[in-house]
Amino acid sequence: MRAVDLIRKKRDSGEHSGEEIAFLVSGYTRGEIPDYQMAAWLMAVWLRGLNRSELTALTEAMLYSGQVLNLSGIPGRKVDKHSTGGVGDKTSLIIAPIVAAGGLTVPMISGRGLGHTGGTLDKLESIPGFNVNLSLEEFYAVLRECGMGLIGQTAEIAPADKKIYALRDATSTVENIALICASIMSKKIAEGIDALVLDVKTGSGAFMKREEDSVLLAELMVETGERMGKKVVALITDMNQPLGRMAGHSSEVAECIEVLSGGGPGDLLALSLELAAWMFFLGDRTKSVEDGRRLAEAMIASGQAKEKFKQGIRLQGGDERIVDNPQLLPQARSHALVSSPASGFVTVINCEQLGTALATLGGGREKKEDAIDHAVGLEFHKRIGDRVENGEPLATIHYNSGAKLAEGQSLIAASYGIGEARPSENPPLIHRVLRV
Amino acid sequence: MRAVDLIRKKRDSGEHSGEEIAFLVSGYTRGEIPDYQMAAWLMAVWLRGLNRSELTALTEAMLYSGQVLNLSGIPGRKVDKHSTGGVGDKTSLIIAPIVAAGGLTVPMISGRGLGHTGGTLDKLESIPGFNVNLSLEEFYAVLRECGMGLIGQTAEIAPADKKIYALRDATSTVENIALICASIMSKKIAEGIDALVLDVKTGSGAFMKREEDSVLLAELMVETGERMGKKVVALITDMNQPLGRMAGHSSEVAECIEVLSGGGPGDLLALSLELAAWMFFLGDRTKSVEDGRRLAEAMIASGQAKEKFKQGIRLQGGDERIVDNPQLLPQARSHALVSSPASGFVTVINCEQLGTALATLGGGREKKEDAIDHAVGLEFHKRIGDRVENGEPLATIHYNSGAKLAEGQSLIAASYGIGEARPSENPPLIHRVLRV
Repeated sequence: MRAVDLIRKKRDSGEHSGEEIAFLVSGYTRGEIPDYQMAAWLMAVWLRGLNRSELTALTEAMLYSGQVLNLSGIPGRKVDKHSTGGVGDKTSLIIAPIVAAGGLTVPMISGRGLGHTGGTLDKLESIPGFNVNLSLEEFYAVLRECGMGLIGQTAEIAPADKKIYALRDATSTVENIALICASIMSKKIAEGIDALVLDVKTGSGAFMKREEDSVLLAELMVETGERMGKKVVALITDMNQPLGRMAGHSSEVAECIEVLSGGGPGDLLALSLELAAWMFFLGDRTKSVEDGRRLAEAMIASGQAKEKFKQGIRLQGGDERIVDNPQLLPQARSHALVSSPASGFVTVINCEQLGTALATLGGGREKKEDAIDHAVGLEFHKRIGDRVENGEPLATIHYNSGAKLAEGQSLIAASYGIGEARPSENPPLIHRVLRV
Repeated sequence: MRAVDLIRKKRDSGEHSGEEIAFLVSGYTRGEIPDYQMAAWLMAVWLRGLNRSELTALTEAMLYSGQVLNLSGIPGRKVDKHSTGGVGDKTSLIIAPIVAAGGLTVPMISGRGLGHTGGTLDKLESIPGFNVNLSLEEFYAVLRECGMGLIGQTAEIAPADKKIYALRDATSTVENIALICASIMSKKIAEGIDALVLDVKTGSGAFMKREEDSVLLAELMVETGERMGKKVVALITDMNQPLGRMAGHSSEVAECIEVLSGGGPGDLLALSLELAAWMFFLGDRTKSVEDGRRLAEAMIASGQAKEKFKQGIRLQGGDERIVDNPQLLPQARSHALVSSPASGFVTVINCEQLGTALATLGGGREKKEDAIDHAVGLEFHKRIGDRVENGEPLATIHYNSGAKLAEGQSLIAASYGIGEARPSENPPLIHRVLRV
């Protein structure tokens, strides 16, 4: 078998066998197939596509390029949630404690933020002392003790994905639903989970702006997961405006603590409960999603989820006192308002641009190697459909360096569409639920 | 400007500016753009195509990646011929002496054979002592003295093409008419010529098997050449069977000497005269193609072309005595026949397979690094439309090593289709002539 012949086959719209895909992925991971051949193949895949069985083979090959965690030593079902990313999308920090408190194990391997989206690892690192770089042995120990663990991708997990993703980034072959699906599913299944809840974002702040694209990706992921023997559900959820009221690292951690304490914004609470409910249901903890929702609510109301969050922070070396005293999280020195240039109703929000503004102000990465200021944050005062007066604040910026303040302010101001009439309907929080 | 953005643009069917293409080609040639980005771009080009102005820009960028020969010190017009390659396709060795004898300068930079096709450089190297690796200074001197020079691509000529071609070969992006056109035309125009005659082969022994593909490539090359200020004509010529009676290196040189001596097979003579006639006409040596043909015939009849060939061989270090005594060329020790398995008429020939058989027997390369046995050759006794009896020889194999004789014989036998009825028409030698 030769890589050059497999490139030709895909170029000419041929269908690969599982052996062919395994040959490419394992050869590339071992360095026997050079970057330039993989780059040509990826572009051919981007333009010609992969069918369902090719996609399953790719996901499996990437999965088995590394270690698949063996959590059999930990009793009970293991479940996880994955989000395709957005602005203010912080549900992991709420869900993991709820579900672990409810009796399931949540082995969550997360990523960092890039561009307009935030990353769970970065948010966790705003907690003083929190260590996301556990060895697998340490990770097992944390999971065994408290049922939740939150770490970054290790060298053992899907090394093919790490190498292929870097190449895709440099060759404009990122935005392809089959490649995205294989990348996500190989990493998630490597966690050794039984069930997975996918939060596929759609709208102006999502990678997939159009609902049909989000649905297509969701269908592929659900089907691929089920083919690989996992229980999977996908919720298509709204990202036409930030989730919750806060974006930025320590601000989002603080908002999660609000929710775990029984408060917090309604949309963030509702989505967190829905995702946790599905995790309980797919993890066979409850007989229905409805029962799962009730269990999730009980975990918050009883304070058990909040205690679980403290325990998780403590076990990963973080300062658990932030849960009772969020002022211990990094705080920005200054704040500035972004005022509405007109009176009317918020009709539309360019949510991606709000994420870009946050990164511009230092609260995100424009390039992978950029440092993050965890204290920088945005507080949103208006949602789609809200009435706003000329000069009234749309958002508050919490910042340390004023260097790019004006740029950030104007990006934020330009993200809001203000119209005469109230929009006839607000975007639904959950657009659809997809199962096989 | 960033390569990753240009890859995305082509992936999404965008049109590149000349600056963008120059950025890619010069960046890649200098090693600033890595192989993997160029590979992804080439695959995007393969699948999305290049329009005429992008193609001209690519050809120019490749041309100016190196030196364009300045032949202004040599009086008169400079003309060349390029063939897309086939089996027994040896006209360069006949045409160059005819046209140089007729008063034009022929600065011919040729390639080597690969796969089923032969290469001019390899054929010349079957002449004892012949040196195809002249420096440019030596090349100028030879051209000045005798009007013809036959060398290989030097490091100074279109280095971008050399680097891009090697990458295309490894990434299955070779067979694309825009990329083929840019590769050929950049090298040919770098020769500093005024006019170019293209021999675009079509049929079972050509790279382009279908006439419409050959025509498309020919049109692109003619148009690109004219856009770059050159006079260009393309002849679509037949490669459904070998050209002439011989294939193999010293055998083909011997056959060229036959033609230059006033003999030789009719098809080879006719095509050589036609190509030379167009070179005389485009090089303003004659007022018409018809006059060009008469001049070419006169160069053979007078012996001037043959003398020019001797002079050319001598100036490039070769043993000119081979022209009067072809037995001095490498001779194979043994021969074997390939007999017809049936009686009837030759209805079709798999000409590519005949070329593959020659390579299998040692008279060609399967891989670039393979050595060639110049003495190995095939002699063809039957052409399409010929009557053949069961057991009558179809071809004679001249060989040194019998290791793959049986394989070669069966490949050759299987290349001939024998039918009951004489085909209603034989393939024409020249299918079409294309000019702007």
